[in-house]
Amino acid sequence: MNYTDATTEEIDIVMQEAWNAFHIYRKISLTQRAEFMRVIAKEIENLGDDLLKIAGEETNLPEARLRNERARTMFQLTSYADACERGDWLEARIDTAIPDRTPPKVDIRKMLIPLGPVVVFGASNFPFAYSTAGGDTACAFAAGCPVIVKAHPAHAQTSEMVAAAILKAIEKCSLPKGVFAHVHGAGNDVGEALIKHQFTKAVGFTGSFLGGKQLFDWANQRKEPIPVFAEMSSINPVFLLPEKLKQSAAEVAKLYAPSITMGVGQFCTNPGLIIGLESEGLQNFISALGEEIKKATPGTMLHAGIFKNYVERRANSLSQSDVETVAVAEAEAQFNQGAPTIASATGEAFLNNPVLHQEVFGPYSLVIRCKDMTELIDVVKKMEGQLTATLMATETDIQYNEALVEQIINICGRFILNGVPTGVEVCLSMQHGGPFPATTDSRFTSVGADGFKRFARPIAYQNWPDELLPDELKNANPLGIMRTVNDQLTKKKNPQ
Amino acid sequence: MNYTDATTEEIDIVMQEAWNAFHIYRKISLTQRAEFMRVIAKEIENLGDDLLKIAGEETNLPEARLRNERARTMFQLTSYADACERGDWLEARIDTAIPDRTPPKVDIRKMLIPLGPVVVFGASNFPFAYSTAGGDTACAFAAGCPVIVKAHPAHAQTSEMVAAAILKAIEKCSLPKGVFAHVHGAGNDVGEALIKHQFTKAVGFTGSFLGGKQLFDWANQRKEPIPVFAEMSSINPVFLLPEKLKQSAAEVAKLYAPSITMGVGQFCTNPGLIIGLESEGLQNFISALGEEIKKATPGTMLHAGIFKNYVERRANSLSQSDVETVAVAEAEAQFNQGAPTIASATGEAFLNNPVLHQEVFGPYSLVIRCKDMTELIDVVKKMEGQLTATLMATETDIQYNEALVEQIINICGRFILNGVPTGVEVCLSMQHGGPFPATTDSRFTSVGADGFKRFARPIAYQNWPDELLPDELKNANPLGIMRTVNDQLTKKKNPQ
Repeated sequence: MNYTDATTEEIDIVMQEAWNAFHIYRKISLTQRAEFMRVIAKEIENLGDDLLKIAGEETNLPEARLRNERARTMFQLTSYADACERGDWLEARIDTAIPDRTPPKVDIRKMLIPLGPVVVFGASNFPFAYSTAGGDTACAFAAGCPVIVKAHPAHAQTSEMVAAAILKAIEKCSLPKGVFAHVHGAGNDVGEALIKHQFTKAVGFTGSFLGGKQLFDWANQRKEPIPVFAEMSSINPVFLLPEKLKQSAAEVAKLYAPSITMGVGQFCTNPGLIIGLESEGLQNFISALGEEIKKATPGTMLHAGIFKNYVERRANSLSQSDVETVAVAEAEAQFNQGAPTIASATGEAFLNNPVLHQEVFGPYSLVIRCKDMTELIDVVKKMEGQLTATLMATETDIQYNEALVEQIINICGRFILNGVPTGVEVCLSMQHGGPFPATTDSRFTSVGADGFKRFARPIAYQNWPDELLPDELKNANPLGIMRTVNDQLTKKKNPQ
Repeated sequence: MNYTDATTEEIDIVMQEAWNAFHIYRKISLTQRAEFMRVIAKEIENLGDDLLKIAGEETNLPEARLRNERARTMFQLTSYADACERGDWLEARIDTAIPDRTPPKVDIRKMLIPLGPVVVFGASNFPFAYSTAGGDTACAFAAGCPVIVKAHPAHAQTSEMVAAAILKAIEKCSLPKGVFAHVHGAGNDVGEALIKHQFTKAVGFTGSFLGGKQLFDWANQRKEPIPVFAEMSSINPVFLLPEKLKQSAAEVAKLYAPSITMGVGQFCTNPGLIIGLESEGLQNFISALGEEIKKATPGTMLHAGIFKNYVERRANSLSQSDVETVAVAEAEAQFNQGAPTIASATGEAFLNNPVLHQEVFGPYSLVIRCKDMTELIDVVKKMEGQLTATLMATETDIQYNEALVEQIINICGRFILNGVPTGVEVCLSMQHGGPFPATTDSRFTSVGADGFKRFARPIAYQNWPDELLPDELKNANPLGIMRTVNDQLTKKKNPQ
């Protein structure tokens, strides 16, 4: 299918409609918002296997994976709907008046309100979960914001189908049409026009560093800068500690091979860098991982652009004089397939060659062999911000390496012990974000209900009579939400 | 006193020390952080009247005001210390494992950790409360961040004295010296070097639009952009609704005259714009306010730069062909004194002349007379983001003007009913922030313990054994803090 890029005039109409709808949508109850999100999930389910078929054709992703991803997308919508209704995220605060204080203390109450229309740029590697009705969209709807999705050109038809499901849900819930819009744009112009539009109030993005950074810069160059949460680039370092390697090098290798190759390595949490101390244990790990990788099957990548990028970056990394190829899958990679590959280099090489710090998006992992713990810590210090970091370690390893743990905390958003970074659980405690360039703002997450807060801001009501306050802040607490009343978290009615 | 600007080398040493100290300071307990903040408050008190004397000489602020501001500064430190210990701000989240789910759900726990060294630029108009040991510094210390203050050149000696008190507290609490540093810089170079330093991880600023925007731009131009919370520019519109004016025009005028002139109008929440419908009530208000302003006493402004700026901007506003002067204080303003002034213009003039939208920092207020509610709402739509907006209204006024209320919510951080915007209560429900250009990020506040969150980010621990987790996240909840365990806010131990 071919879709035409939205024109400036079309974008202007869409944004005006979103702005008008905002003032209606933001005032419907939390329950109504939640209901809307649940209906979207249902409508996506109603698209049935047709959706999986089209998505499979557009992304080359296997059916089982797409089926799981669709389930995850629906779970995001319904679990965020629950969180929306629960209302903890509103951060309702009440400080009651003390009229006889000098000067008198007035009644002040605060809660989060939505920022306004949010523009969402879907990811190529998750046609459902991080795209049209994905996490950013679900968070924005929960926060009370209309959403304008720019379809990813690599799965534009899938995006159209999901957009239609959202529009159906809007109709069923009798919401204004402007609560959601879907536009196409193969080039940069559409994105730029969307970000620079006066009625755009925030941006969600998942994709490449270059793409995300460009949106961030455009947003900050506006007369009125707006927040951009762009999840961009991460090589997700894995640290193999000595005792752990001594005990179970082969098991660690067996755990990691599928994490490196699953989904043809096209995950933002793919472990692209594995770091250990030069030792027999590390050599055993490298050999065992190499054997696993040789047996791996090359998979077809998402689209020609990503394939080309993988081929080039992999070749660039492997061609560095200080990098040696450890293993490549023995089954030959066909055109558009990513060849699972493991390479290796010394800690010194990593410290001196910035090419080795770059993400190779695909089934590629580089093992760094450090000569001692001092060099390994230097390697961490040289690293940029990451979505995740992983320790493969015994408790003794950790107790003996406090300085390393401290350094790793500086650079990551999620810190995994004895596991793999791939697989991002959808729950409140998830942090899917991290220091730049993993994301543009490490204070937020794009997975879990805390992601709503990217799209909301506090407003304080001072000296308002109870009956004119929003329900969330009324004395009687009619919504039954948790609120901080005079510094104490409680569901109680305001005692006054 | 003359202080020399910090050199690039000095800044580099200071930032390196802050970075080193960060790794120690961030790991001390919440109670130790709180204790440190309480000792700072005590040390500021110990500076006694000498501090008030020097501050008075440097800022021309009267002693009573300075005494109050010092008390407020100490209250900020001690009340934020309490909030720091209470731990709600950490947003601790625990999702326990479900091993028999397919795939198994792992244990994930999340909490906020400090960003790193924070650079604070103090405000000229609050030598204590928004300066060296002011709100930004207190929030950063509570969050676990070292602070580097660039002294405001207009009260550099006051700043030195407060800095010495902080350094004494550091010694008393046996903290590393690098937890706090104080540098001087009359020009822009020092600020630029501080913001662009690799170890600077966030910025707090209170001051002019030009200053704040420059810091924001520098921060975003870094290789690793960092968050800037700059509180900048606000004219704090006040809306006078018809019934209220009919009932009590004179009382409203009496309430507002001191709000306009107090502190020689040098407050970020000074009401610079008052808007009503052309009517007898509005005319009565204008006359009554004019009478009050004529009786007001001109006060000496903070420094020559602010005085010059007031004279120029006031003259520029008054010289617009569509602006008429209503009243000027009869007592003649001496050199460096701000003359209390009220002017007036039509709604049409406001809509067509952007000069009338600009802040005139000082005891100046412009009354806008709108021909009807449609024009008044258009006036709101043309306004930029504001720290505060105020309604002077009866309940009937509000019920009849829902569309106006809706528009005002779009542009403000704090919404006051029947009060004055001056006077910013220090409490959790306070929102001292607002849409751009009031601040650079409307999602945060610089007053109240929610201000900590400007300087902290979440980290998720996945699959860590209880004994290796931070105390905040341990099963037994040894700190007794509120945590969201499996989606429920509770102080209980994790039931598992």
